[in-house]
Amino acid sequence: MAIDSLVVLVGGVGGAKLAHGLAQAMPAQSITCVVNTGDDFWMYGLRVCPDFDTVMYTLGGLVDPVNGWGVAGDTVMALDALRRFGEQPWFRLGDQDIATHMLRTEALHRGERWTQTAGHLTKALGIRLSVLPMTDDDASTIIDTVEHGRLAFQEYFVRHRWQPTVRGLDLSAAERAMMTPEVRFAIERADAILIAPSNPWLSVAPILALPGMRDLLLSRDVPRVAISPIVGGKAIKGPAAKLMNEIGIEVSARAVAQHYGQIINGFVYDEVDRSAPPSVAQLLATDTIMKTDADRARLALIVLDWIESWRS
Amino acid sequence: MAIDSLVVLVGGVGGAKLAHGLAQAMPAQSITCVVNTGDDFWMYGLRVCPDFDTVMYTLGGLVDPVNGWGVAGDTVMALDALRRFGEQPWFRLGDQDIATHMLRTEALHRGERWTQTAGHLTKALGIRLSVLPMTDDDASTIIDTVEHGRLAFQEYFVRHRWQPTVRGLDLSAAERAMMTPEVRFAIERADAILIAPSNPWLSVAPILALPGMRDLLLSRDVPRVAISPIVGGKAIKGPAAKLMNEIGIEVSARAVAQHYGQIINGFVYDEVDRSAPPSVAQLLATDTIMKTDADRARLALIVLDWIESWRS
Repeated sequence: MAIDSLVVLVGGVGGAKLAHGLAQAMPAQSITCVVNTGDDFWMYGLRVCPDFDTVMYTLGGLVDPVNGWGVAGDTVMALDALRRFGEQPWFRLGDQDIATHMLRTEALHRGERWTQTAGHLTKALGIRLSVLPMTDDDASTIIDTVEHGRLAFQEYFVRHRWQPTVRGLDLSAAERAMMTPEVRFAIERADAILIAPSNPWLSVAPILALPGMRDLLLSRDVPRVAISPIVGGKAIKGPAAKLMNEIGIEVSARAVAQHYGQIINGFVYDEVDRSAPPSVAQLLATDTIMKTDADRARLALIVLDWIESWRS
Repeated sequence: MAIDSLVVLVGGVGGAKLAHGLAQAMPAQSITCVVNTGDDFWMYGLRVCPDFDTVMYTLGGLVDPVNGWGVAGDTVMALDALRRFGEQPWFRLGDQDIATHMLRTEALHRGERWTQTAGHLTKALGIRLSVLPMTDDDASTIIDTVEHGRLAFQEYFVRHRWQPTVRGLDLSAAERAMMTPEVRFAIERADAILIAPSNPWLSVAPILALPGMRDLLLSRDVPRVAISPIVGGKAIKGPAAKLMNEIGIEVSARAVAQHYGQIINGFVYDEVDRSAPPSVAQLLATDTIMKTDADRARLALIVLDWIESWRS
């Protein structure tokens, strides 16, 4: 049975790649991405939403193919000019990227909901998927670190290059934030729900922390499938493995599946981990690495086929 | 008698050139520029202060020498990226320029007074003059035009390239704005006050419209000297002559002096207008055109010498 309505919970680069693959493998307008906003922050008066923009730039065909984030070929004239005033900017804001932040900031100051603005921005770039911020409220993730104490997410992630030792995550802002009506509607009518191979603690946990989100997902008797971001005991990208170590969790696909628990009833993991299958009702072992555009489409097709066969 | 403390009321390009000349002709730290803020506005979430930035970039040696405003060699990557989202930006925001707006916007959102931020920005650029916004409050000038009705200043000036016919100026925001303590202090202790050859109606009138400003100036028994922006019946730059025509005022240096009335007790006009001397107590006819850096310093020296001789 074909999937008419797919929801994907995504963070940054990994989620963006999967969403891009899915858009090649099924009608793009049938896909809704629900994007983590725990990493959004204010910088130099501008509202910056790194995960959202990574997804938007990837789906809009603008993304820097080397970094996986930012706009391809972007310059940093404004950033360099900040240094003239004695600033030491630690977050890379490309000039083209700044245009996105300006439009968003203006709309938010005008009182527009971030969800609405996000719709305008993605539509303007010709993106046919719905790309929804998980909430319009502040949901800032705080990382509690051994070396620097409590850090705003991007301070941990970018300023300190995720090197501090994590001793806890504070998702209390997300726990007070409201899931948007658009997100609720998409999940209520989805006939399959995917969790992208994004960082389960830093990218997906804020989404799951929204009041009512876990219950809403559990209430949906449809395939709810996570794809492991841990392959062969390592993170595909970023701090997932390092963080699992620090919070005392075995660095394995099996531990990721265990972490998601009842939220998922299906799990996709890499074939290199076939010897240690997670204990989830429905399991698919396949090559999960997405290096090229073709890899993304292939993984998306395999996962969609598998879910469809399982539903038939 | 040497001038220990000079205040200059300035608008954009003309005022910036004079201030730059004065800084060559006397100790820069003895000069306070009081800058029109009637042209400040919000654009794409950023606070943009064209007159102030023109003065700052000119004094900081950054200004585009061709335009007389903006940063030399600036690019427009962000502006071009806005078009990707369907925007049609009508105000040129250079990428380096945007850095200034970002810093200002962040500081204002943090609750800093614009005067304080202005101090930080100019100090960071090595500017030793005090460059003071006339007010920290909103003082937006509205231009009432025949063709488009009421226009915000930059909509009239930039969007419509000052082509609409002016039928009135609404300075009511400036009339409600508060002169800053810094501006009051500078004027109270000044031993000479200059009005730059900026547009008397669009650039200087908002400064004079601040509550208490006229009385404060009139109370100072020191040289109060305006330099005519009208030379040989034409404006040196911009819409001054066109506007004078539209509001039914003779386009002449004499009419400018008459417009300032009791506010000034000295007037500098161009030698080409020598045949029609304004009726002001102290008069200086000289070459007032500032094409080169040397012209600026020369005019500044002549005017300062003249004021000093007059005071001795």
